[in-house]
Amino acid sequence: MLTSISGYPEWLPEDRLVELRLVEMIQRQFELYGFMPIETRAVEPLDVLLKKGETDKEIYLLSRLQDSETKDIGLHFDMTVPFARYVSENFNSLSFPFRRYQIQKAWRGERPGQGRFREFLQADIDIVDSGSLPIYADYEVLQTVVDILRVLPIPSARLYINNRKLLQGFYQGLGIDAVTETLRTVDKLDKIGEDGVRKMLTETVGLSAEHADKCLEIGRITGADSAEIRAAVESLGVTHDLLDEGLAELSFILDNSSTGKGENPIVADLSIARGLDYYTGTVVETKFVDFPKYPTIVAGGRYDNLVSVGNTRLPGVGVSMGITRILGLVLNEGLLKASRKSPSSVLIALVSEEQRGKSLHIARKLRARGVACEVFGTDARFGAQIGYAVDRGIPYVWFPDGKGDTPGEVRELATREQTPADPDTWTPDESHALTIAFDEDAYESLKAEGKYA
Amino acid sequence: MLTSISGYPEWLPEDRLVELRLVEMIQRQFELYGFMPIETRAVEPLDVLLKKGETDKEIYLLSRLQDSETKDIGLHFDMTVPFARYVSENFNSLSFPFRRYQIQKAWRGERPGQGRFREFLQADIDIVDSGSLPIYADYEVLQTVVDILRVLPIPSARLYINNRKLLQGFYQGLGIDAVTETLRTVDKLDKIGEDGVRKMLTETVGLSAEHADKCLEIGRITGADSAEIRAAVESLGVTHDLLDEGLAELSFILDNSSTGKGENPIVADLSIARGLDYYTGTVVETKFVDFPKYPTIVAGGRYDNLVSVGNTRLPGVGVSMGITRILGLVLNEGLLKASRKSPSSVLIALVSEEQRGKSLHIARKLRARGVACEVFGTDARFGAQIGYAVDRGIPYVWFPDGKGDTPGEVRELATREQTPADPDTWTPDESHALTIAFDEDAYESLKAEGKYA
Repeated sequence: MLTSISGYPEWLPEDRLVELRLVEMIQRQFELYGFMPIETRAVEPLDVLLKKGETDKEIYLLSRLQDSETKDIGLHFDMTVPFARYVSENFNSLSFPFRRYQIQKAWRGERPGQGRFREFLQADIDIVDSGSLPIYADYEVLQTVVDILRVLPIPSARLYINNRKLLQGFYQGLGIDAVTETLRTVDKLDKIGEDGVRKMLTETVGLSAEHADKCLEIGRITGADSAEIRAAVESLGVTHDLLDEGLAELSFILDNSSTGKGENPIVADLSIARGLDYYTGTVVETKFVDFPKYPTIVAGGRYDNLVSVGNTRLPGVGVSMGITRILGLVLNEGLLKASRKSPSSVLIALVSEEQRGKSLHIARKLRARGVACEVFGTDARFGAQIGYAVDRGIPYVWFPDGKGDTPGEVRELATREQTPADPDTWTPDESHALTIAFDEDAYESLKAEGKYA
Repeated sequence: MLTSISGYPEWLPEDRLVELRLVEMIQRQFELYGFMPIETRAVEPLDVLLKKGETDKEIYLLSRLQDSETKDIGLHFDMTVPFARYVSENFNSLSFPFRRYQIQKAWRGERPGQGRFREFLQADIDIVDSGSLPIYADYEVLQTVVDILRVLPIPSARLYINNRKLLQGFYQGLGIDAVTETLRTVDKLDKIGEDGVRKMLTETVGLSAEHADKCLEIGRITGADSAEIRAAVESLGVTHDLLDEGLAELSFILDNSSTGKGENPIVADLSIARGLDYYTGTVVETKFVDFPKYPTIVAGGRYDNLVSVGNTRLPGVGVSMGITRILGLVLNEGLLKASRKSPSSVLIALVSEEQRGKSLHIARKLRARGVACEVFGTDARFGAQIGYAVDRGIPYVWFPDGKGDTPGEVRELATREQTPADPDTWTPDESHALTIAFDEDAYESLKAEGKYA
């Protein structure tokens, strides 16, 4: 990764190829599930950006170089807030339930760190409806993520889910008034640990020591079996309608996702709170199974009050995959590599400037058949031309016939075999296709090293 | 086009589909020609952005909402300046000649208008080398554009080329000292016409009336035949080495691009100057043949002094395709449309909540075979489920077997034919593929209307 401005990652072409292919795979999966594409502008009015909680310090504002008064628009910091605005604005032109995907950059002015960037690519899916949205939508969004993560050539990941209603009902059942502050504090478990959270809950939020302990206790409940989760929650002796509702929703997802085939990648973790104010039900955070210290790679949840048109609220559920964050691990640790740097399968050599037409003719025919190629720029000696191909991993060099009128010969650089070929029929061997491959050895080494563990 | 902030276009999902497919086609073509992908961050240091001339007022600066001192980075306004910076920074990791493509958003704070946006998508290709770069590279970049424009389902376009050396040599041969000011003034021909340019050349730049007339005369020379262009230039009676050099380069491109097959889309137009300071040779502007009043859709040229590493200059040549600008015509005028709104080929109906497993099972099998589909969210009556498919243009509805264990039946909505089908083998008819189609009738109407003519 190249970062000449802190937090703004750039890649070499061979790594950009990996990113592009990953994005194509994700996009293809989103479309396989019937999500429609949209894109929103990079900027939003400041008041739209500030509707969401806790991120005001991270917003980049725009001003014009010679007209610095224009301060009312800023770069979006996620795709959910712009999506909510887009749905409201285009309500009458969209069909509901509306399923959309959106793969775009977002920007946050926060401190860069491991897996944390100021500019990053996100891939979002969401479903919103103009009436009610069944819990099945939550399941479907999560299952789509599970399926995509299985298809991508990346380390295995697990989805940790919880439900806001469950936590809020539990807090209310305990008699806690400061529900939002309690949620936000519990959300810091990852960062400040149980002792830190207990201290904040009693000293800052003002809970009794007993209540603080109960909040920590429920956060220790994890597992994929809904009956066990329910039993563990009930053993804490708190009852509340909202708690029941949340537990039922959580159970629906767990029950439907345990297919019995292999490990269930969706597990309940009642410590998950998600800091953002707008979640109202399901919440999810996804981590690499073997790299739990690496930040969350997919996150999201249910929001019943974020999108509105007039007085009507449109419930929604969605997740955001952090593509740059995933790349921050798999590229930086050398887990994923493109098989070559250049898209070209063949370099067409140039015999002489006068015979450039021959090379161009071959290139034209190959491209018409979908074979990526390029013609060498000068009539340098063949050794230099072959060196150019080697540098870029281009697997073949085509030598036009400098003396006669045959189409010439193709050399496979790996084997040095050179054979006559016809540009109307010749095809590169599949073993030379431009692919991206997961390096199992590098993965095993990284696990053994214990980094991010 | 939806623009709730002036100059920031957004599209409905069906139009975003068109944009995505166009981008995919362009990307595929770039790779067929062996260009390697890179992406640069959206921001550059202000001093990098200000190296290029005449755009300082259009730059968007970034500041953090609660820390407004950070004023030294801004959004890039094109891909050429960031590319030059990227090449300099990563010189030792790249192989030269370096051919890259880059498809990204750029931002300019200028006044929005017809085809002019504040946020827009550009698709760039460039070739730079660490030594000299032959004129062949200029030809190759232009020919790549010609080929791509032919492949895209858009109105036909023509490339108007000129050469900075030719103009500069001509001005110097005349004895004009203020070469840059003359170039910049001549570049305004499109906007202020011959009389306006003559007035500026004599009154502002300080040329004699005779010199101003000569500058206008050379600007009237156009054509695809290099011998005719040469004769027309020579008839103006000015000689200069740089003029000869420019004429030779221009002729090289014209001679190689006239293939004799159909109309030659590359023609010389000696009025083309391009305002930007960094062009040193070939310059190009591309317009829709039938819509000459619509702004340039592809532009670029040769820059021998823009990229440098230490004391070494790296000559380069490249063009930038304005994707948003192309869409601004073809989508706004209804020339290009997606065949349906949703990527889904099939809606799997839901017989009842209890039988959701059946629908999910069918969906899983279809997706595994690459058939895009979605499962209806509730067990609403079939009429409502069919209506959902109709709204989105989903061509088929699959009804699982609610009573038995067969895979059920598929209804083709267009014909209302319903037949038993097997999710392991069933495939949608090709006539229902999600495609984007050019509307010839709308095109003919637009031409007849005389808009942009």
